Amino acid sequence: MNTKSILGLAVLGAVAALPAWAQEAAAPVNNAFIFNTLLFLIGGFLVFWMAAGFAMLEAGLVRSKNVTMQLTKNIALFAVASLMYWLVGYNLMYPGDAWTIAGLIGGFSPAVIQGDIPADAAYATGSDFFFQLMFCGTTASIVSGTLAERIKLWPFMVFTVILTGLMYPIEASWQWGGGWLSTAGFNDFAGSTLVHAAGGAAALAGALILGPRIGKFGKDGRVHPMPGSNLTLATLGTFVLWLGWFGFNGASQLALGTEADANAVAIIFANTNMAAAAGALAAMVLTQVLYKKVDLTMLLNGALAGLVAITAGPLDPSLFGALWIGAIGGIIAVVVVPMLDKAKIDDVVGAIPVHLVAGFWGTMAVPFYTQGASFGAQALGFAAVAGFMFIVSAIVWTVLKATMGLRPSEEDEIMGLDKAELGLEAYPEFRA
Amino acid sequence: MNTKSILGLAVLGAVAALPAWAQEAAAPVNNAFIFNTLLFLIGGFLVFWMAAGFAMLEAGLVRSKNVTMQLTKNIALFAVASLMYWLVGYNLMYPGDAWTIAGLIGGFSPAVIQGDIPADAAYATGSDFFFQLMFCGTTASIVSGTLAERIKLWPFMVFTVILTGLMYPIEASWQWGGGWLSTAGFNDFAGSTLVHAAGGAAALAGALILGPRIGKFGKDGRVHPMPGSNLTLATLGTFVLWLGWFGFNGASQLALGTEADANAVAIIFANTNMAAAAGALAAMVLTQVLYKKVDLTMLLNGALAGLVAITAGPLDPSLFGALWIGAIGGIIAVVVVPMLDKAKIDDVVGAIPVHLVAGFWGTMAVPFYTQGASFGAQALGFAAVAGFMFIVSAIVWTVLKATMGLRPSEEDEIMGLDKAELGLEAYPEFRA
Amino acid sequence: MNTKSILGLAVLGAVAALPAWAQEAAAPVNNAFIFNTLLFLIGGFLVFWMAAGFAMLEAGLVRSKNVTMQLTKNIALFAVASLMYWLVGYNLMYPGDAWTIAGLIGGFSPAVIQGDIPADAAYATGSDFFFQLMFCGTTASIVSGTLAERIKLWPFMVFTVILTGLMYPIEASWQWGGGWLSTAGFNDFAGSTLVHAAGGAAALAGALILGPRIGKFGKDGRVHPMPGSNLTLATLGTFVLWLGWFGFNGASQLALGTEADANAVAIIFANTNMAAAAGALAAMVLTQVLYKKVDLTMLLNGALAGLVAITAGPLDPSLFGALWIGAIGGIIAVVVVPMLDKAKIDDVVGAIPVHLVAGFWGTMAVPFYTQGASFGAQALGFAAVAGFMFIVSAIVWTVLKATMGLRPSEEDEIMGLDKAELGLEAYPEFRA
Repeated sequence: MNTKSILGLAVLGAVAALPAWAQEAAAPVNNAFIFNTLLFLIGGFLVFWMAAGFAMLEAGLVRSKNVTMQLTKNIALFAVASLMYWLVGYNLMYPGDAWTIAGLIGGFSPAVIQGDIPADAAYATGSDFFFQLMFCGTTASIVSGTLAERIKLWPFMVFTVILTGLMYPIEASWQWGGGWLSTAGFNDFAGSTLVHAAGGAAALAGALILGPRIGKFGKDGRVHPMPGSNLTLATLGTFVLWLGWFGFNGASQLALGTEADANAVAIIFANTNMAAAAGALAAMVLTQVLYKKVDLTMLLNGALAGLVAITAGPLDPSLFGALWIGAIGGIIAVVVVPMLDKAKIDDVVGAIPVHLVAGFWGTMAVPFYTQGASFGAQALGFAAVAGFMFIVSAIVWTVLKATMGLRPSEEDEIMGLDKAELGLEAYPEFRA
Repeated sequence: MNTKSILGLAVLGAVAALPAWAQEAAAPVNNAFIFNTLLFLIGGFLVFWMAAGFAMLEAGLVRSKNVTMQLTKNIALFAVASLMYWLVGYNLMYPGDAWTIAGLIGGFSPAVIQGDIPADAAYATGSDFFFQLMFCGTTASIVSGTLAERIKLWPFMVFTVILTGLMYPIEASWQWGGGWLSTAGFNDFAGSTLVHAAGGAAALAGALILGPRIGKFGKDGRVHPMPGSNLTLATLGTFVLWLGWFGFNGASQLALGTEADANAVAIIFANTNMAAAAGALAAMVLTQVLYKKVDLTMLLNGALAGLVAITAGPLDPSLFGALWIGAIGGIIAVVVVPMLDKAKIDDVVGAIPVHLVAGFWGTMAVPFYTQGASFGAQALGFAAVAGFMFIVSAIVWTVLKATMGLRPSEEDEIMGLDKAELGLEAYPEFRA
Repeated sequence: MNTKSILGLAVLGAVAALPAWAQEAAAPVNNAFIFNTLLFLIGGFLVFWMAAGFAMLEAGLVRSKNVTMQLTKNIALFAVASLMYWLVGYNLMYPGDAWTIAGLIGGFSPAVIQGDIPADAAYATGSDFFFQLMFCGTTASIVSGTLAERIKLWPFMVFTVILTGLMYPIEASWQWGGGWLSTAGFNDFAGSTLVHAAGGAAALAGALILGPRIGKFGKDGRVHPMPGSNLTLATLGTFVLWLGWFGFNGASQLALGTEADANAVAIIFANTNMAAAAGALAAMVLTQVLYKKVDLTMLLNGALAGLVAITAGPLDPSLFGALWIGAIGGIIAVVVVPMLDKAKIDDVVGAIPVHLVAGFWGTMAVPFYTQGASFGAQALGFAAVAGFMFIVSAIVWTVLKATMGLRPSEEDEIMGLDKAELGLEAYPEFRA
């Protein structure tokens, strides 16, 4: 018996003297595996909750005659994302070594989360799948708000199938799947570009091809406001998104099994909250200064833009860094709206300023705090992802327009999609 | 000094050389105990949240004149469940060795969660109590929706006392308390039968004895739709339930202290989400095919039916298994509604298709994926629980009808329970 | 080579023989640090959610013409709290050894959460900061409800800056920062006094200086009810608060790294739920007895008062203890309302009975179950904190009244603050 055996036995002997549960505890349970899996599951259910947040935000910001439609789209798009991400998205985004075109297009096969746990696994595959599919759902949620009140249900659903099954997984694979962008030095911690700007670019393409709502931009050149029907819902939706974002950014640390990881997740939570608060306050003060009164919807979008802005790099900035990054996000949410109006782009809920423009800002802000990040690589990543999403979306929207048609008849749009297309009003007893 | 002592000392010596916190960490802390407890607490607060989900779903699906009553019942029934489950339910459901009638009726004593932690405890008793009482609350929530708009407050509350204090704990003890069903080979992971079908059977008995709302079924044989007053609330409620269900099914694994348990919880989360998504999409497509338009309320109930269906066995199926089990649930939610209408059973929110019928389906689907499960045992378990709940409920409802009376006067029902019974309108400023 | 070295090597040798992840796991990872941090983060996001709960509760209990304003205040006050707690609050509340005036006034410097993790750290600083700032936000949320419908936006915001940056951190430092109250034997586990009564006292001072809403108290001496515009929202808000309170009380255990801590958190969750349920039921039965009908808003406030009452000592009581402490809280919520009416104090949402009076009750109930607590010390702590908050608030409100003015013009108040001050209606399509 050599020394090593004796020493090994020493531990085993000590373990054998312990009570049953302690033996098990002393046996090498991989606590880090459990912590990491738990982080994904908690983060995942928080990001799931964001789907409800988008639904409430959008239902609150459309007119009451289109609320049922907006709710239908939001819950259906999440269901589609869940299906498509399993069917092809997960392996397309995380191909491992099985790229179809190396670094550019991943593999095509359904996700499998069952089976033995590999000895070197850091987390449960199911928890990763669960967490990542929520991001796919978020990307789709962003699109529905911009295009509200004037797009038919089924072409929107077909677009969602393509977005969640192909477009999002492909561009996200470039960075998070280990594709070409990740080797180009791009940094996007939780998706200012990969999720938010991606969704925003798809929405922008749709808004351009779909055109504005009837009556939004008058022939006299004036913009006609179409106020949201239920601001309590919109506020609730914003609170839900703010809450969900702790999971969105926090669990994007991808690990909780060491003190350093736990510490990182904690910093991310605090920075995420600070950016949201700063975005809200910046928008609040700016609307008071510009328009002599606070605009609640801008305040809400300011909070969301602050959140989008910090998402590319929520770990490295100090709390003060999160503050100013978020505050500029909030300013963007306010100042971009009149620009879109000028360009006659009708973005019903303000998703383009919040997700696309603040997503750009957040992406470009990363090098201020993250070592090794460069403005060039950030600009490249943003341009590649937003460009890809915009162009492919434009093609898909154009094909859908030519085949299924995108818009309801003028009569139906004026009547409202709820009555015209669904035959079901959201508030049948409350007359306008 | 024998070898064993030396070996034991070896570990202790090594521990003594570590810094203070590491000594504590190296001392046999039962991390599994903490993980398991945490799972119950997270699962518990998620299932608590389902009480809010039912409240919103039901408040959204009733007419505005009965909303205050529906909200009152929902929050009060959860409070009653909390009280009764402590007073008698917990020990009735988990009697250990203290059965009143072995395997059939447990013990009668209040729950105690304080006291020393036994050396072999796998989790904190308080966390198990907290988690399990939420299931008791869920069962009661199911009943309130079916009977909405036509039952007086106090008889409903008396029924809830009996349901939560006696009926649910007794039938649940048969399986989860180690009673006769568990030895008969029945499988019901998180309660397709024990919670959902049980609540649905109690609701069905109530609907039959209570009769339909005035005007629901015309003398001309036609069904008069009575659309819900607030579909944003109904959608919010569904999202809340979907979220809560991750805790409902996930924490029913009852353990998180090993890699295998963490992996199982992760699979359950992913399967639960897949079943909900598939149920929603199946209902969406089916209503389009059958009625030429998508029906949001069916889509919502489809998601819920998918969730109910996967609840009996959320761990063993593949994602594809969860998909088709959930999709059939969604189909059930759509096709059972006209059957109930034909039978002149007035189920205001569709709880009977969603919880009773999809609960049956989910229970019977277990043997497709779970080794050792049999269709016979599944049918036996379902019949026993649903039969017990239906019969006892029918007796209780009949006695309540004969004593307190169940229905308000015709005049009061037409006026709405909010004004008539509570004197408080939910939306006093928004006139129908 | 001495014995100790050999024994130390024994462990290291055994570790070296393990696979990579197990080596890491066997290396002294401080799991307690991770558990504690995770508790703060989960507790923190649950308490964050309470900000949404207050927003919904208050938006539901005001008249529709003031809903946008109430929403604006609620989201803005939380953003201000996030900013101020970083800028000065955190170090003012937890000065360590850096008191400005020992035991009375802490230090003045922004919070820093980055940097190396000290070897003896029990949790991530960022997670503590995140959790504690949520309590600061809660205190501010309490004030907004009482003063609703008749205070201008900006003076309210200035008060919030002072409350969250100075007043709350100072009084909370007296106990939780290790100040003079903590050495005086005061007990307040999660803040019946330090958060709830503190907020309630600030609200009371504001209500007295601001005066009642126009028309609330008629010249004929009668009280004119002004019913809330949306009871589904109010109910949703209550459910949200109830949910958030599990984090509020549970994570105030401040540790989850041992079996004893996990057990304590579990007991706190169960007791917190019991107190809420008992408060709801007590208020329900009492309103039935007093007014011959159940009052939903009282039931909601009863649940909240039960929660406030248990907050000072949620760990030590039995479930039965939590029941009667919570039930008395619920009774307080009902019986204090007519007293306030008699005193012509206009408390729009009932925050004074719920937070101040039930907070007093909960504080005084601690000695019934907590060893070492005394009625004298409890009364001292309550008087000191409530007195400090009332007096300082009264001064600040008075100064604001004299400088900015607190109330809108009579015309604006009658028109509603949404149109008059914000130019944005919450429900523009639903006419009263």
